[in-house]
Amino acid sequence: MDNRRIYLDHAATTPIDKRVVEAMIPFLTAHWGNPSGIYAEAQTARKGLDSAKSQIAGILECDETEIVLTSGGTESDNAAISGVAHALEHTGKHIISSNIEHHAVLHTLESLEKDGFEITLIPVDTEGFVDPSHVQASVRDDTILVTIMTANNEVGTIQSMKEIAQAVDEKNPKTIVHTDAVQAAGAIDIRPDQLGVDLLSLTAHKIYGPKGIGALYIRRNTPFQPFIVGGSQEHDFRAGTENVAGAIALATALTLAHNEFSTRNDSLQKLRAQLWRDIQKSKTEAVLHGPKNFNRRLPNNLSIGFPGIEGESILLQLDIEGIAASSGSACTTGSSEPSHVLTAMGIDSDLAHSTVRFTVGTDNDSNQISHVGKIVPEIIERLRALSPT
Amino acid sequence: MDNRRIYLDHAATTPIDKRVVEAMIPFLTAHWGNPSGIYAEAQTARKGLDSAKSQIAGILECDETEIVLTSGGTESDNAAISGVAHALEHTGKHIISSNIEHHAVLHTLESLEKDGFEITLIPVDTEGFVDPSHVQASVRDDTILVTIMTANNEVGTIQSMKEIAQAVDEKNPKTIVHTDAVQAAGAIDIRPDQLGVDLLSLTAHKIYGPKGIGALYIRRNTPFQPFIVGGSQEHDFRAGTENVAGAIALATALTLAHNEFSTRNDSLQKLRAQLWRDIQKSKTEAVLHGPKNFNRRLPNNLSIGFPGIEGESILLQLDIEGIAASSGSACTTGSSEPSHVLTAMGIDSDLAHSTVRFTVGTDNDSNQISHVGKIVPEIIERLRALSPT
Repeated sequence: MDNRRIYLDHAATTPIDKRVVEAMIPFLTAHWGNPSGIYAEAQTARKGLDSAKSQIAGILECDETEIVLTSGGTESDNAAISGVAHALEHTGKHIISSNIEHHAVLHTLESLEKDGFEITLIPVDTEGFVDPSHVQASVRDDTILVTIMTANNEVGTIQSMKEIAQAVDEKNPKTIVHTDAVQAAGAIDIRPDQLGVDLLSLTAHKIYGPKGIGALYIRRNTPFQPFIVGGSQEHDFRAGTENVAGAIALATALTLAHNEFSTRNDSLQKLRAQLWRDIQKSKTEAVLHGPKNFNRRLPNNLSIGFPGIEGESILLQLDIEGIAASSGSACTTGSSEPSHVLTAMGIDSDLAHSTVRFTVGTDNDSNQISHVGKIVPEIIERLRALSPT
Repeated sequence: MDNRRIYLDHAATTPIDKRVVEAMIPFLTAHWGNPSGIYAEAQTARKGLDSAKSQIAGILECDETEIVLTSGGTESDNAAISGVAHALEHTGKHIISSNIEHHAVLHTLESLEKDGFEITLIPVDTEGFVDPSHVQASVRDDTILVTIMTANNEVGTIQSMKEIAQAVDEKNPKTIVHTDAVQAAGAIDIRPDQLGVDLLSLTAHKIYGPKGIGALYIRRNTPFQPFIVGGSQEHDFRAGTENVAGAIALATALTLAHNEFSTRNDSLQKLRAQLWRDIQKSKTEAVLHGPKNFNRRLPNNLSIGFPGIEGESILLQLDIEGIAASSGSACTTGSSEPSHVLTAMGIDSDLAHSTVRFTVGTDNDSNQISHVGKIVPEIIERLRALSPT
């Protein structure tokens, strides 16, 4: 990658930490065995796999048997929701979620709706917050599952997950709570006991790990019907030969995020504050989406509407200047619909279409951000000058 | 891995070819972008992903849009079967398969059966063959899917897939045909047009690639409901950020298998013949499972029953001698049930439990096989001497 480029789309994916690649390599070269065998080659792989799961469990403060490896956040979300839904469909068919969830959640719910489940989507306020009392009021006797994301990928809103889980529990202690913590991992405390959740989705490639590996935490005794079936891997929770190198990568990425938690997040918060200050100083018209209180949004996130300018045009100009950013979720690129997250927050279609998401990362520094803080207003003014309106 | 060890469990997983790892590394280091972005980092990843899919499509002689990346063979099988079943459930609910399929197929079918689908499992003969006319006789107006594996992972039986697909098509041209070609890839011609199938499952780790990446071929216009939903990746066929490094690895492994097809398989056939000859010469009582005609079984497979001796004991002794083999499918390790494949072939439980599967690979040579051919009879005789019966 060109060293002069400035990457500000860490919410889409992160560069892979060298230490993560180094930890993986032995499991792509010498230790390639299938962990299910009884011979030496298999046992070396099994040891690697077990140690990876034990590391992950250590950080989440749970039992190793509560960690199930998946191919990423999307599979984790699909498995969590359909796993609980199918295990409990004879008890109830009501599921609660929010209208700013990731499509991995929303599309799974749509598919369950076709199968006769009833879905209630809690609206959010203008900053993207779900009100715990609103969730509580919606919980019924037949509510089998509540799934709310820990932090939003587009606008960075951090939910009061603990309060939501408590509110659910007070109303119906049998209701299972899942959270998509894909974007929150590394940035805030996601220990399931702290959040009060029964299932939690994770992925490696948002925390400086590779793509194609994730995990699903499933609290012991949670009703769950396996999503991918076949061999008896992962204590019969997820079939398929285990991706050992991927497991090592996820464990390493999570461990590094854990060990470097404060330094990383302090630095991200500073860079993010610097960028927002510079944009504000420039007097360019800019609207910040999501929480105004920076402590209640992910430390690396700025989602900004630049009224009157197409977000896509800004991104193309930024790319020419060597800066990578995005208009929102990478998963909906190419869609002409305004972001469902911004729409749910009451932002009109025009402003939604004029939005750029900047997400800083550990590879950014203050010089880069100064440069971006200067370039962005220039680009906006240039585009405004060209614009007919 | 200890160089003096002899690995003979290539059907469980294969060592990763150095050339495959070398091809992956740039996508774990410099080219880590999310292919869905519009900026340079994303486009480099997109180019890698597209070129991987184009390589895979080139070898399968199909269109790139007919290739969907998955996390491996098990997900491919789950997605293929449930994808067609749910797309066609209003047309018919009858599915045909065989009783020697991989559990990724059989367990998916069991789960569909609970949802009201009707499953017909075609029995196999004593060598593990499915009779195409038997399949044809079972096809009905409401048969939406036939799923038969191209070659069996335990006994190596290569089905007459083309004849099966033709027989199905003659009876009901609307019936979709899927094949699990996970074990056949690299060993026989698996071009979908040659086999006459509409869907085909593949995985990298059986052809000297890494674990955690596979593919599903889906013929254009085949009714299919996506299995993992969320973002609009993979032409909306499979959600989740694409595992670019994995895609490159699968494409490279498949290309190497294609380019070295004859040399690899000639060598495997010779080593396999040598091992069977040595064991027969030793006069140790040994029963070969699967096709006696070596041209009709996978070139690397020997599945042998050693009457009166527990397979597990043989494996432990072999491991001590530095030789890795298995008792059957890696996916059912730890189960005390006799192999469903051997049972379906009419082999009694005792003989099934006394079975060892040897699968040779490109890392084996004739010296290794001579050594194994000498050691195996010694171990068997030693165990027979100890055995009370």
